[in-house]
Amino acid sequence: MQKEISPAVIKRMPRYYRYLSELLESGVERISSAELSSRMHVTASQIRQDLNNFGEFGQQGYGYNVAYLHNEIKRILGLDQRHRIIVIGAGHLGQALTNYERFVGRGFMITALFDTDPHKIGHSIREIPIFHINEMEYFVRENNIDIAALTLPKQYAKEMADRLVALGIKGIWNFAHLDLDVPDDVSVENVHLSDSLMRLSYLIKSTESNK
Amino acid sequence: MQKEISPAVIKRMPRYYRYLSELLESGVERISSAELSSRMHVTASQIRQDLNNFGEFGQQGYGYNVAYLHNEIKRILGLDQRHRIIVIGAGHLGQALTNYERFVGRGFMITALFDTDPHKIGHSIREIPIFHINEMEYFVRENNIDIAALTLPKQYAKEMADRLVALGIKGIWNFAHLDLDVPDDVSVENVHLSDSLMRLSYLIKSTESNK
Repeated sequence: MQKEISPAVIKRMPRYYRYLSELLESGVERISSAELSSRMHVTASQIRQDLNNFGEFGQQGYGYNVAYLHNEIKRILGLDQRHRIIVIGAGHLGQALTNYERFVGRGFMITALFDTDPHKIGHSIREIPIFHINEMEYFVRENNIDIAALTLPKQYAKEMADRLVALGIKGIWNFAHLDLDVPDDVSVENVHLSDSLMRLSYLIKSTESNK
Repeated sequence: MQKEISPAVIKRMPRYYRYLSELLESGVERISSAELSSRMHVTASQIRQDLNNFGEFGQQGYGYNVAYLHNEIKRILGLDQRHRIIVIGAGHLGQALTNYERFVGRGFMITALFDTDPHKIGHSIREIPIFHINEMEYFVRENNIDIAALTLPKQYAKEMADRLVALGIKGIWNFAHLDLDVPDDVSVENVHLSDSLMRLSYLIKSTESNK
């Protein structure tokens, strides 16, 4: 049983991973917590605290070993396992996700898209096929799918989530504009674009009123 | 000068707004904090605390007036002002954003897309034109643009952000996979899809190890 980690820490971990990947790509072997901190605009003590949730990674006066820390965070985030994804909804957003090749390098593999539009079914994107949504159940069972990305209109999202839960899906990457009610053993990560745009509106407004 | 509001509260405000919009659409005039709390899966005291950052909204034993609270949150989020948006990058993601009509109802208007691909330039999406990126400066100045959505590859994002900052843009909605360095008076809202997918991976992993 893992210790409960706060959502704020979990939110920062992928960012650490992203920075460490870049350091690794540029051949940096070791980094001080001060330098990692200045690059990431996070205090060094915040970084230490965050990482301490998962064990001891740094060494006083030595800093962090980039490859080691990168690998540990990879393991913490479960990126050492392969994830097999389906995308429900082959619209622009579904296609954007499917075209994003970088996911593959991190162990995420989009295996199929599903839609109801006869003009889309039978086509493929980067050799990834688009099937009719009625084939979804069969495909998920046969292909060991653990994640479904929902990029379909809000009014269909609840029914689709129920179908996915019944299939034993482990994670839902939800782009539909509602919050899903799913059992505790199904993980949901929401990307609510309109919420995000409203936050931007708030930030602009509060910046202006602070002038 | 507004009081500093914590990022966690700001993150929840659009969600309140979304729920209140739904209540309003279904004709609900008044809601108890207990019921709002159960719908949103947030404690009633959390809701009270969040809203108290902005003034007094509820009344003991009466609950919240939906239309009033909706309107106040709209104002708090700056949704009573119109925002004029350009989208940099007319790929699938840029097109997905442009197609998302719901934004318009909240005062966000996408006015143009910019790209370098000659096959895209001159075309339009929902009557919104795609221009060459070289026309961006002129367009922003002439059309009172306050927000730019960046849906372009990471390697071009920094230069583009610098160009937008020089133009006096107020907000950047950043979908590029890097963190931007901009002056304090420019607001940035990041949508890092790969970070989001990594969080989902973490949630799946920790759910499994808690079984």
